[in-house]
Amino acid sequence: MAGPFPNEVHIAGVGMTPFGRHGDKTLVDLGKAAVETALADAGLDYEAVELAYCGHVMQGSTAGQRVLYSIGATGIPIFNVENACASGTTAVRSAAMAVGSGLAKVALAVGFEVMGRGAIPTRGDERLEKMAKADVPALPAMFSSLFNEHSRRYGTTLEQLAAVSVKNRGYGAKNPRAQFQEPVTVDDVMASREVAPPLRLFMCCPTTSGAAAVVVTSEDVARTSRKPIKMVASAMQSDPLITESDSLAGITEINTKAMRAAYEQAGVSPDDLDCAEVHDCFSIAEIIHYENLGLCERGEGGRFAEQGVEKAHVKVSTSGGLLAKGHPLGATGVAQVVEAVEQLRGESGERQVENARIALTHCQGFGGAAGVHIFTA
Amino acid sequence: MAGPFPNEVHIAGVGMTPFGRHGDKTLVDLGKAAVETALADAGLDYEAVELAYCGHVMQGSTAGQRVLYSIGATGIPIFNVENACASGTTAVRSAAMAVGSGLAKVALAVGFEVMGRGAIPTRGDERLEKMAKADVPALPAMFSSLFNEHSRRYGTTLEQLAAVSVKNRGYGAKNPRAQFQEPVTVDDVMASREVAPPLRLFMCCPTTSGAAAVVVTSEDVARTSRKPIKMVASAMQSDPLITESDSLAGITEINTKAMRAAYEQAGVSPDDLDCAEVHDCFSIAEIIHYENLGLCERGEGGRFAEQGVEKAHVKVSTSGGLLAKGHPLGATGVAQVVEAVEQLRGESGERQVENARIALTHCQGFGGAAGVHIFTA
Repeated sequence: MAGPFPNEVHIAGVGMTPFGRHGDKTLVDLGKAAVETALADAGLDYEAVELAYCGHVMQGSTAGQRVLYSIGATGIPIFNVENACASGTTAVRSAAMAVGSGLAKVALAVGFEVMGRGAIPTRGDERLEKMAKADVPALPAMFSSLFNEHSRRYGTTLEQLAAVSVKNRGYGAKNPRAQFQEPVTVDDVMASREVAPPLRLFMCCPTTSGAAAVVVTSEDVARTSRKPIKMVASAMQSDPLITESDSLAGITEINTKAMRAAYEQAGVSPDDLDCAEVHDCFSIAEIIHYENLGLCERGEGGRFAEQGVEKAHVKVSTSGGLLAKGHPLGATGVAQVVEAVEQLRGESGERQVENARIALTHCQGFGGAAGVHIFTA
Repeated sequence: MAGPFPNEVHIAGVGMTPFGRHGDKTLVDLGKAAVETALADAGLDYEAVELAYCGHVMQGSTAGQRVLYSIGATGIPIFNVENACASGTTAVRSAAMAVGSGLAKVALAVGFEVMGRGAIPTRGDERLEKMAKADVPALPAMFSSLFNEHSRRYGTTLEQLAAVSVKNRGYGAKNPRAQFQEPVTVDDVMASREVAPPLRLFMCCPTTSGAAAVVVTSEDVARTSRKPIKMVASAMQSDPLITESDSLAGITEINTKAMRAAYEQAGVSPDDLDCAEVHDCFSIAEIIHYENLGLCERGEGGRFAEQGVEKAHVKVSTSGGLLAKGHPLGATGVAQVVEAVEQLRGESGERQVENARIALTHCQGFGGAAGVHIFTA
């Protein structure tokens, strides 16, 4: 596996806070905890970090500085990066570019978000504003419309969406850092209230606070760490379709392109994957991404959810995904890498995928950003 | 001059809109115009662009996509970057890293902001909120306090601040894209209303909308363009002092470090500069930056403003600076590079600095980011 950059890129350390409701904890409390854990895991002091990329959406223009100053950072360049729900992935990819290009040996990628109810920002985006009908929040409305299209074309059912929620809540029950710690049944999911009809509450990711951090290093620095994991693909894609229409064509195009680019960089096929964290912001999204990833044929995602995914070689959203682990916007893409690394290290406890060798992470931001990374043990 | 990166970095094309009040124009209208101008100037089609960095503060998490989609961009990775008022500089430095590291041959840096009255965001920043006293906006209050400290220590006067405003408004009158097109006198400045006592309105930058773009390329691509300009330094610095106290120590430390790093990268001294665009968000800031840049001794900035700067070899804020050209947050750092490039090309019209060979740009974001670039003809 050649990898995506001229120089090898490794993840030498990972850290994250529990995801969920954090009461009075600030973004500095959360970000600091994640960074300190990641640095300790990498066996590095803060002084080793040459530059930092901070992914967040609603925390203020220099929120990254506030987090990093709290652990004594001075001097290094700090970049705050955004791409909506893919902000964390963007931070990881930026750090990987810095190391992979040879400009740095140690770069930090941090993601964090403190969110309250109804926190998803629609500022400035007319399409998103329009999409928000009287009593229906904008993003659930969008994914409800995607489900309707998928259902009309391919016969996808609400019960198939529920199967995704059941699987991911099940994984969440095995992940001590997930927001939801209880398994649910298909009946529970179907009985939860309608958020954006016909989507039920348990088919939507919750509002979440949390932080995650990864230490991205060169091969020689990685060699000094406990259990480094190699990055073998880093692909990022933008595409206007996702903003021009809330249609399957849009969500398919941008994500499929990024996934294919990542497979090509890593020289792997869907069959080679052991774990995949996908952007399951809604159950219908995970179903569409089964198809985008090539885990099943186009249109077969619903049936795959009900009958295929549990038996498949690749295990999907083992962290609990956005549906159960939670979705603190900027933290999500970084936390996906934490899960991939822990799986490949064999340190995922009850939810460990046996002999996991290759893991993929996939994140998507509304407005046009899809990021895919592949890692290997 | 070795330059800041393993590979040479050039600015092959620049573009910007007029800065000012733009009525109904959207960020897409403004950003599109700037990007199209920059690409035409570079003699490149959009297809040549491999990735793009978009600096903005209040435009939404994927505003960069909205701008770039409008010119037909599909596929390339788009990074939205933020560092408060240094967001534009951060975009330029990010694009320079991509090219300088060899990862890309053509990267776009775009900055834009559409601002209304009272638009400076204080979201999430308790210190900034506290600083905003009853009737005094936060940032003028901060710089008023900096002036008081400078005045107490070094005897700096309001008339010296006024001299900076007069100089920069004079340059603005010679820059067709500046928000303020009329020269003012010291009396005019002193007679303008007190915004944050004792600071007068004309000692503060205005609220501005606008966009700027630069095409950052490798040496071989630059050679095919009309009149490329070489980047010989790119330094970025973070430092907590600027957020921990609204004190001279803070604003001095972070900016001086970035400036010194840039001088070292380029192998130049203050005496070598022909032009310098500094972050003159308030007149007192420009005075402090004279000292930080080493154009005069520490504490002498006020006297230098009144007696030295007009006669000095280096011409400061020839674009009119933030005080006269305006300060659309994300656009500012990119527009500074536009000015530097035009000066070094000898295309600055009435405000052209004779035989300009070396130009510096300096931007600072509240919360802890200072960015300095140096260019040579």
